[in-house]
Amino acid sequence: MPFRRIAILGLGLIGSSLARAVRARLPDVALVGFDRDPAVVTRVAELGLVDILSPSAAAAARGAELVVLATPLGTFAELAQAIAPALEPDAVVSDVGSAKQAVIEAVAPCLPAHAHLVPAHPVAGTEQSGPDAGFEDLFQGRWAILTPPPGTPPMAVERVRRLWEAVGATVEVMDARHHDLVLAITSHLPHLIAYSIVGTASDLESVTKAEVIKYSAGGFRDFTRIAASDPTMWRDVFLMNREAVLEMLARFSEDLAALQRAIRWGDGETLFRRFAASRAIRRAIVEAGQDTAAPDFGRRR
Amino acid sequence: MPFRRIAILGLGLIGSSLARAVRARLPDVALVGFDRDPAVVTRVAELGLVDILSPSAAAAARGAELVVLATPLGTFAELAQAIAPALEPDAVVSDVGSAKQAVIEAVAPCLPAHAHLVPAHPVAGTEQSGPDAGFEDLFQGRWAILTPPPGTPPMAVERVRRLWEAVGATVEVMDARHHDLVLAITSHLPHLIAYSIVGTASDLESVTKAEVIKYSAGGFRDFTRIAASDPTMWRDVFLMNREAVLEMLARFSEDLAALQRAIRWGDGETLFRRFAASRAIRRAIVEAGQDTAAPDFGRRR
Repeated sequence: MPFRRIAILGLGLIGSSLARAVRARLPDVALVGFDRDPAVVTRVAELGLVDILSPSAAAAARGAELVVLATPLGTFAELAQAIAPALEPDAVVSDVGSAKQAVIEAVAPCLPAHAHLVPAHPVAGTEQSGPDAGFEDLFQGRWAILTPPPGTPPMAVERVRRLWEAVGATVEVMDARHHDLVLAITSHLPHLIAYSIVGTASDLESVTKAEVIKYSAGGFRDFTRIAASDPTMWRDVFLMNREAVLEMLARFSEDLAALQRAIRWGDGETLFRRFAASRAIRRAIVEAGQDTAAPDFGRRR
Repeated sequence: MPFRRIAILGLGLIGSSLARAVRARLPDVALVGFDRDPAVVTRVAELGLVDILSPSAAAAARGAELVVLATPLGTFAELAQAIAPALEPDAVVSDVGSAKQAVIEAVAPCLPAHAHLVPAHPVAGTEQSGPDAGFEDLFQGRWAILTPPPGTPPMAVERVRRLWEAVGATVEVMDARHHDLVLAITSHLPHLIAYSIVGTASDLESVTKAEVIKYSAGGFRDFTRIAASDPTMWRDVFLMNREAVLEMLARFSEDLAALQRAIRWGDGETLFRRFAASRAIRRAIVEAGQDTAAPDFGRRR
């Protein structure tokens, strides 16, 4: 049992999944929850996800050995200020955000010297939001990336590692800036592109929205699933990982322009070469166990 | 039974699925197959997918009431020339290609006056290729779009409609150019973007390929699935639907540039507004029965 008392601030998809997973895998941990949305608090009480529902972030943090920030990234600085006076000696502060250098910059300056920051990012999620969308196995077989700033006591990192391993994740420790670059290409840019093309489709005047919906099985549908993810969370990810996202976006735009040029000039050879190379990446992902080879794009209803 | 004898030219994912579906739903139809790849011919014989395997496209077409072109779009003009002398009076020529105006332009001029062209596009598929990837239910509950050129005898259209309905599809008749515009946004552009981002990811030097694969569950994985589709088929789709794809691509690039600008200038309001609008489209697709609401993006392995 890495922590005896854990406070989770924010009980949406990820926070409520963590509560469920801790309850199932570490039943002796005392779970304290806080959410600023009264509707979420009511629902979490009905579902019985935590032992104690606190009226404030500071009250939740008081007495906790671990405080997990599970709200949108944009709220972290304010939350850190609110909980700082309540933190116990050797309390660990962690989070579940998708950008990590920004967490260090927003949270670390607010914390007292006797508390330790161990930022974490479980690479797991669905396109759904809220406490009802969470489930116990969300982290099973997924990666959890820890990005402790230099000087973090190894024991604090170790305890957070043990928590994520207890709920089924495989833990990697990484430099925060490198994390942000890796996730910019594997997660942030795909989401930005998906949001963008769904927007493009809904703005057309020559093709009706009904037609877009009707024939979405041709590929568009999969983009809409990604683009259904929580807008507040994603707004904050893009604002908080600005540099890495803009860098990847610039590269993507160049590559897309090259394909555009090949189409315009009828350069089939370039198109074929680029398309064929993509299959190799797909194969590697299936072999690495990150997806199945079962045909999914044309999945039955 | 809309046709007594059907020739399928090209026995990959779509051609072999059509053969399987006809065999299952219209057992009295005589099925003739042709493929220029000897490995495919051998495999189709082993699987017993057709009644007769013909040594040439012309031989397959001889005596057939319907000839279906199920090869990449770039081969259509040559195939049409090859089969033209063998076509029976009132024979119907159809296809399964993803671009339709180009089919009319490539095939119609080659056909004798006594044959009828009814281009068709079953909006179904998976990211896999070849005769082993096909399955009987591929068209079940999917759309099949027919784009007969002006002057096509209504009876020819009706017979093709009945064939697709027999294998489980719902048929729509549409102008070929309008089809190309609708599919450019719902299918062709999503594929181009997916190919492009997978290419961008594999060209990075700061992030290793191993990392891209490892953390692909964050969103990238779904793009690789789309980008694993057959490169020859897709090369031809982009060359054959050039204008519509370039038009949609230009709009997409503008919209993406607007998001890029919002990220650069920290304009969270614009990001939130755009992202929130995407959820409505997703909801409509789920409500239209084109996808399920089950969380899939974070699917378990």
